[in-house]
Amino acid sequence: MPSYIAPLEDMMFLFNKLRNNKKYNEIEKYKEVNSELVKDILEEAAKISQNLILPLAKSGDENPPILENGVVRTSPGYKEAYKKFIEDGWISLSCDPKYGGQGMPKTVSTFFDEMLSSASLAFKLYSELTIGAYNCILRHASEEIKDTYLPKMVEGKWSGTMCLTEPVCGTDLGLLKTKAEEQSDGTYKINGQKIFITSGDHDLTENIIHLVLARSTDSPKGTKGISLFLVPKFIVKEDGNVGSRNGVSTGSIENKMGIKGSATCVLNFDGATGYMIGQKNRGLNSMFTMMNLERIVVGIQGLGISEIAYQNSLSYAKERKQGKANNTKSENGADFIIDHADIRKSLLNMKSIIEGERALCFWLSQQTEVSLNHSDENVKQEASDFVSLMTPVVKSMFTDMGMEITSEAMQIHGGYGFTKDLGIEQLYRDNRITPIYEGTNSVQAADLVFRKLVTKNGDIIDKYLNLVKEETNINDEKIQSYKKQLDHYLAILGKFTDWIKEKIKDSKDDVSAASNDYLKVLGLVATAHAWIKVLEVSFKDYEKNKDFYEDKIQTANYYFNRVLPRAESYFKSATTGSKYIMEFKFN
Amino acid sequence: MPSYIAPLEDMMFLFNKLRNNKKYNEIEKYKEVNSELVKDILEEAAKISQNLILPLAKSGDENPPILENGVVRTSPGYKEAYKKFIEDGWISLSCDPKYGGQGMPKTVSTFFDEMLSSASLAFKLYSELTIGAYNCILRHASEEIKDTYLPKMVEGKWSGTMCLTEPVCGTDLGLLKTKAEEQSDGTYKINGQKIFITSGDHDLTENIIHLVLARSTDSPKGTKGISLFLVPKFIVKEDGNVGSRNGVSTGSIENKMGIKGSATCVLNFDGATGYMIGQKNRGLNSMFTMMNLERIVVGIQGLGISEIAYQNSLSYAKERKQGKANNTKSENGADFIIDHADIRKSLLNMKSIIEGERALCFWLSQQTEVSLNHSDENVKQEASDFVSLMTPVVKSMFTDMGMEITSEAMQIHGGYGFTKDLGIEQLYRDNRITPIYEGTNSVQAADLVFRKLVTKNGDIIDKYLNLVKEETNINDEKIQSYKKQLDHYLAILGKFTDWIKEKIKDSKDDVSAASNDYLKVLGLVATAHAWIKVLEVSFKDYEKNKDFYEDKIQTANYYFNRVLPRAESYFKSATTGSKYIMEFKFN
Repeated sequence: MPSYIAPLEDMMFLFNKLRNNKKYNEIEKYKEVNSELVKDILEEAAKISQNLILPLAKSGDENPPILENGVVRTSPGYKEAYKKFIEDGWISLSCDPKYGGQGMPKTVSTFFDEMLSSASLAFKLYSELTIGAYNCILRHASEEIKDTYLPKMVEGKWSGTMCLTEPVCGTDLGLLKTKAEEQSDGTYKINGQKIFITSGDHDLTENIIHLVLARSTDSPKGTKGISLFLVPKFIVKEDGNVGSRNGVSTGSIENKMGIKGSATCVLNFDGATGYMIGQKNRGLNSMFTMMNLERIVVGIQGLGISEIAYQNSLSYAKERKQGKANNTKSENGADFIIDHADIRKSLLNMKSIIEGERALCFWLSQQTEVSLNHSDENVKQEASDFVSLMTPVVKSMFTDMGMEITSEAMQIHGGYGFTKDLGIEQLYRDNRITPIYEGTNSVQAADLVFRKLVTKNGDIIDKYLNLVKEETNINDEKIQSYKKQLDHYLAILGKFTDWIKEKIKDSKDDVSAASNDYLKVLGLVATAHAWIKVLEVSFKDYEKNKDFYEDKIQTANYYFNRVLPRAESYFKSATTGSKYIMEFKFN
Repeated sequence: MPSYIAPLEDMMFLFNKLRNNKKYNEIEKYKEVNSELVKDILEEAAKISQNLILPLAKSGDENPPILENGVVRTSPGYKEAYKKFIEDGWISLSCDPKYGGQGMPKTVSTFFDEMLSSASLAFKLYSELTIGAYNCILRHASEEIKDTYLPKMVEGKWSGTMCLTEPVCGTDLGLLKTKAEEQSDGTYKINGQKIFITSGDHDLTENIIHLVLARSTDSPKGTKGISLFLVPKFIVKEDGNVGSRNGVSTGSIENKMGIKGSATCVLNFDGATGYMIGQKNRGLNSMFTMMNLERIVVGIQGLGISEIAYQNSLSYAKERKQGKANNTKSENGADFIIDHADIRKSLLNMKSIIEGERALCFWLSQQTEVSLNHSDENVKQEASDFVSLMTPVVKSMFTDMGMEITSEAMQIHGGYGFTKDLGIEQLYRDNRITPIYEGTNSVQAADLVFRKLVTKNGDIIDKYLNLVKEETNINDEKIQSYKKQLDHYLAILGKFTDWIKEKIKDSKDDVSAASNDYLKVLGLVATAHAWIKVLEVSFKDYEKNKDFYEDKIQTANYYFNRVLPRAESYFKSATTGSKYIMEFKFN
């Protein structure tokens, strides 16, 4: 089993040193959330991740949930751990105190998301979708529904799901067939089949609240005829308690390559009672509230799995001896593999990406909070635009990098990485879902280039590039060499952006074929931006904590020398256009 | 289960149109191997791969071999299929007619290696190591041993293994502990434990011939004290039949992420009788004969798995509808995903890499045959040097690309790629061993930069670069735009090579840290070289088979526009040196 120690020092560094964002500081409700409180919370979060959740990873992989007489039984240990998890109030961390939550900002809860992803993604998913459903209900449902469902969900007694995908539609929800027929009492009867439903059924909670996309019988075809319905597994009685079983049943559990501990279900809705959430035919918009936040969390999953893969690679490299290093000092036998240049390079590649991503993510968490809670609508909107822009980037880049990093971990472990003993191969398999679900990474890239760069709110990418330029316009002489490198890639990103804006007018296929590369370049530059902010503090406070800041500076060196330059080739390839791609005749 | 049709048209194109290599044509023994004969063989090879072997992939994955009362039982269907496989003489394809082989050159048998890898890598491995052991015995053993063992191995009644790895040593064989004690009759008693032994034990053959690296009790430490021993599972009697059990037993079967149908064993040698092969203390050299050929085959495994991943992605893209394409013509509903630019790009990425690799591999097969069979020692040596240079490149690049391609296949299949139903995730898992075994890809890169570029035979890389320049100095005007691109990257490779040669003198860590990138650049350029040769024929013979050659030209366009430019970033990153990497203080 891989070991894991939550990276509290880095997390607290970000919270203490990079929180000083004017607009974020203006948010009234988080003024009490100070360093000491956060440290206490994260220390407890670390304990529960390391001690309670981590062992569930192997258990879930080896004994996936089973469907028995219509009931889904989770993996050994999951039920006991979940009970402790909710008793200690971990579901409620970021929820509204009005419904029993602890009201922590994303700048804190995101760290917990990362820890849980490191410990066991499969286990995490049981609570993650509850938070997704909570957010959607909070923003779109009536007060009555909120009062009925949210307290139990925040408490963790009831969990949630997102029911979108059907056999004929994943990416393209316009094709969905699930029907909703209005009843005389204002409720709906839901009929249809949903597939790939994460935590679709299980024995951890007394009720499961499904948020289901369906087409009302009198609604038009396509995406404009989709509404959102709340469909509980058990009907909730007037007194708020769980009543009779609703018409939702589990058809089967998917047999998957990874996250085997997570019950991914086929759900059959047979005249199930549903309650409409939000406006009729606007279901997709409501669901996207949930989905956008969820996409960022998927990126964080990639980051969390990267972190545990790195930690175990580092410790293995320190204890495995093999071959002589170039400058060996050992007379006899082999050196530790951490003395080999290519292993060190691999470790630094992981570390520089992980820490850069974590810093970028912290910035994004602040922007998210500003977008939700700032008092000035204009400030809110601008932050919201940045969050929208960065959502596909974080989702795709972090999950792709997660594959690169878990793969490097496997290479460092050699044959022992491919066999099951050390659990490294499980990290690789578990992370492999992240570039797929919540919209494949190509779907994210299309979303970025076609819907996020320039919107009705203006030229978002232009504002973002200006923000990066402003924020990296730092006088400290020690920053200049990094800034120069960033400027070079900012210029490439600028040219690439102009190319996209030009091509989008009448060669959309060029844009589509360039979209994945564009996302990567934007992601690399955004991470460099985050690194520059880390470097700014590192040089300024150097004397206060030399070891820590020297580590940051050297790690940044790796990022600027060996990760950022990937942008060069992406730009060059992508701007060759798509004529030869579109005209190709596939046999 | 994925479907598979062997790419006979492309294979026969290479055999018919790119075989015309002067030195290869001078090999006497292959003059009879003409196009018709090869076509007949490959058609039969295709049938057996598609019909007999392909179904074993799923069977092996779902029911891996088990160790029961000291006996390894292979997966359902393996025994029957293996029987048919050897009855039809497939083991013997490339073997010497003197021992019952069919004497086919690598230009033919390599295609069969690819087909088997596409169909079921796990099944292939049972025969693959037999060929490895056959080659090693053929070149290094006494006539008596050859006469005793080779006919049965060529027939497929006995199989072979390579026993190198031990718990403390994989990459670094100098550390190995297995002991060999000489007996009065000239045989040895072998004691020790070997791990990760592919096909280490199974029920497919009546005997298993282990080639074991061990240290004679009077030999020195390190790599210079290692000898090679033949250790049969059952002692062979004077009459050539199988006798009593030798002191080799199976400790356990590894539980792995992929190639689950292959029995990867822990073998315990307890006073097992062994026969020394080749000279004492020169075992590593003898083993490397086997290993080098085997490394190329591992590259071909990556190619084979890429091919089946591509075929299934293409057919899925033609039948799955999702979303509207940019230039949609459908009024209602979604378009086939093959109409989406990013899916087409992904398919062409796969195709252009696969076909380029196959062409490069064909060239390498010719070089291998020249290196083994040409009458002129100088010609032989030069070809041998090129094979040595390209061995780590083919091993690493093809297997890394295999991961990229199986990953793209999974993305194209979305959720259906991650679940077990369609078998796509199995391709991804099965291929994941290829960058690890027979020396990790980083070990290959180190081998390339430190041992293959400049050797006692001269400046090999320089000769190779000149060869590429000569062979691509083609007058056809239509080639010029490709040639110009190749020249650009040849120049980068030249600069990179000079940098390596300079740094190797006193900054070996710079070279180590650059080695993986250097290998990639060399691989990309070598594949472009192969593509130019394909293009030369395509333009020349265009009118004779327009559809086929147009396909080649367009596929090459993709390669030159979108694959080759990766070299740019690799070069830029790698030449930043290693000071910041070596000085880093890992916590």
